[in-house]
Amino acid sequence: MNIDMIRAAAGRLEGHARRTPLLSSPFLDAAAGRRVWVKPECLQRTGSFKFRGAWSALSALDPEVRARGVIAFSSGTHAQGVAHAATLHGVPSVIVMPGDAPALKIANTRALGAEVVLYDRSAESREEIGAALAEECGLTLIRPYDEPQVIAGQGTTGLEIAAQAAEVGVREADVLVCCGGGGLTAGIALALEADAPGLRVRPVEPEGFDDMARSLQSGRIERNNATSGNICDAILTPCPGDITFPIIRRLCGAGLVVSEDEALMAVAQAFLRLKVVAEPGGAVALAAALCRQDAIEGADVIVTISGGNVDPTLFATALDTLT
Amino acid sequence: MNIDMIRAAAGRLEGHARRTPLLSSPFLDAAAGRRVWVKPECLQRTGSFKFRGAWSALSALDPEVRARGVIAFSSGTHAQGVAHAATLHGVPSVIVMPGDAPALKIANTRALGAEVVLYDRSAESREEIGAALAEECGLTLIRPYDEPQVIAGQGTTGLEIAAQAAEVGVREADVLVCCGGGGLTAGIALALEADAPGLRVRPVEPEGFDDMARSLQSGRIERNNATSGNICDAILTPCPGDITFPIIRRLCGAGLVVSEDEALMAVAQAFLRLKVVAEPGGAVALAAALCRQDAIEGADVIVTISGGNVDPTLFATALDTLT
Repeated sequence: MNIDMIRAAAGRLEGHARRTPLLSSPFLDAAAGRRVWVKPECLQRTGSFKFRGAWSALSALDPEVRARGVIAFSSGTHAQGVAHAATLHGVPSVIVMPGDAPALKIANTRALGAEVVLYDRSAESREEIGAALAEECGLTLIRPYDEPQVIAGQGTTGLEIAAQAAEVGVREADVLVCCGGGGLTAGIALALEADAPGLRVRPVEPEGFDDMARSLQSGRIERNNATSGNICDAILTPCPGDITFPIIRRLCGAGLVVSEDEALMAVAQAFLRLKVVAEPGGAVALAAALCRQDAIEGADVIVTISGGNVDPTLFATALDTLT
Repeated sequence: MNIDMIRAAAGRLEGHARRTPLLSSPFLDAAAGRRVWVKPECLQRTGSFKFRGAWSALSALDPEVRARGVIAFSSGTHAQGVAHAATLHGVPSVIVMPGDAPALKIANTRALGAEVVLYDRSAESREEIGAALAEECGLTLIRPYDEPQVIAGQGTTGLEIAAQAAEVGVREADVLVCCGGGGLTAGIALALEADAPGLRVRPVEPEGFDDMARSLQSGRIERNNATSGNICDAILTPCPGDITFPIIRRLCGAGLVVSEDEALMAVAQAFLRLKVVAEPGGAVALAAALCRQDAIEGADVIVTISGGNVDPTLFATALDTLT
């Protein structure tokens, strides 16, 4: 896992993934007490950065292997990324999803061309189901984060952040990244190590699901007690990945943690000030920029919005905080 | 008013206005019966394309004239564009706004650095108030659309559309543009005439405020009976401009008209499929792509989303159409 893999992934993503813009607002600057630069991956194809990793992994496969199809297990956004990338490559995809995933995500994944297999999150192991189906049908398993070519794809976000930060004259800043299993966090950290060493990644997680922050503190992989029961559903994972954690431990600053209410407030601010749709899990980094000012260093902060696949009723709840 | 003015404006906007991306979604393609390419100017600074025209006009002024300050009359989005552009240039701005403009727009305009003067839309003329204040204080009046340097700034949107359409291989398509006084419509039409002659602009308006569509039919400037009373408030203007109309008449196809319900539905689709926040007036072009399929030609359609400054309660109403 190295920067050359990220640069190669960027070449394969050219013309397929979007180069999302870098947004800002004088209102957010005032609210955060420093300049806030936002990388809105909710504007990425399928509404999240996950398309980058999925395209990277699919496009790196041997064509004969790829033609047999791919399989993924995912709480939603990785599923849509893999389904869309597979359909665009003209190959079949099977997605193993928890039965309690938002209806919108299940429907979208099917509409994007995947066969969806549902499982019981409390009783079954998605890893076992995925491995068995992969074996049976000759499908290649695309892991959501602990997979070098997926991390390489997510890391292309970091190459863009490095270039866009330089364009606006930002050489030193904390880069707050919404963190589940750590694929986006590790990928961006590797890209910035190479292209913008003055930018330091900090993972951001929801309260009660701060496995990465605790793992960084203790120096070893710590687990969450649960993987559901929080509106930041897109970034609830059992523990840091075996591949992602050593990278994050070597390169990242301390983790930040925000509450559900703070995430909802950030969703509302992204609506009001940036005109983008963020899901709560995708807004935790913006929430940290606005609510953890004393824990952040420097005159600038860079923030990822990792996704925007949010049910309309939950989004309306976030808007209620504005009135 | 010519393409050279637009290219010069593009040079002055470089590094100040955002180059907004070109978005798409397989779900919108399916719903519209053709490929839909969306230029989301809601992601522009201040949440609408108006910043382009404001920056163009401010940056074209003689520095000594500019230093005395500028004045604008606006239902909201032009106000924010001028206020922000003036503050970034370090010069004062006065904005004459209707007293019934959304509270959010008034507050935002003040926060962006402008002095706001409110007037009674039913009893007073904003043109007369603006001219008197301009005379009294030595301010330069920045008209919202019937002003060559403003049209030139809005036209930079068209230069970007031409380049981005070529990147995705689109050489022939209708380009649907949300139309009030016609500044954006005329500017884009001039840019496309030069850089992408296979792309044809079509103005889109709300039902009951279709002055441009009727003027194109009759061949002379027709007026609306009212300039308020529709949720598409950002694009309610009394009649086409004296400068914009001849350009639009020479270059554009027939106008399209959509209902308030169709505009709200398009706001919801922009939320769901593109993850951007559109105001109803900014969503009429997308509404036309989705609801007027038989009136559009070709395998592709390009759509502008002109702005995203929408009150949260109205946005929640749009989301209700999804559930």
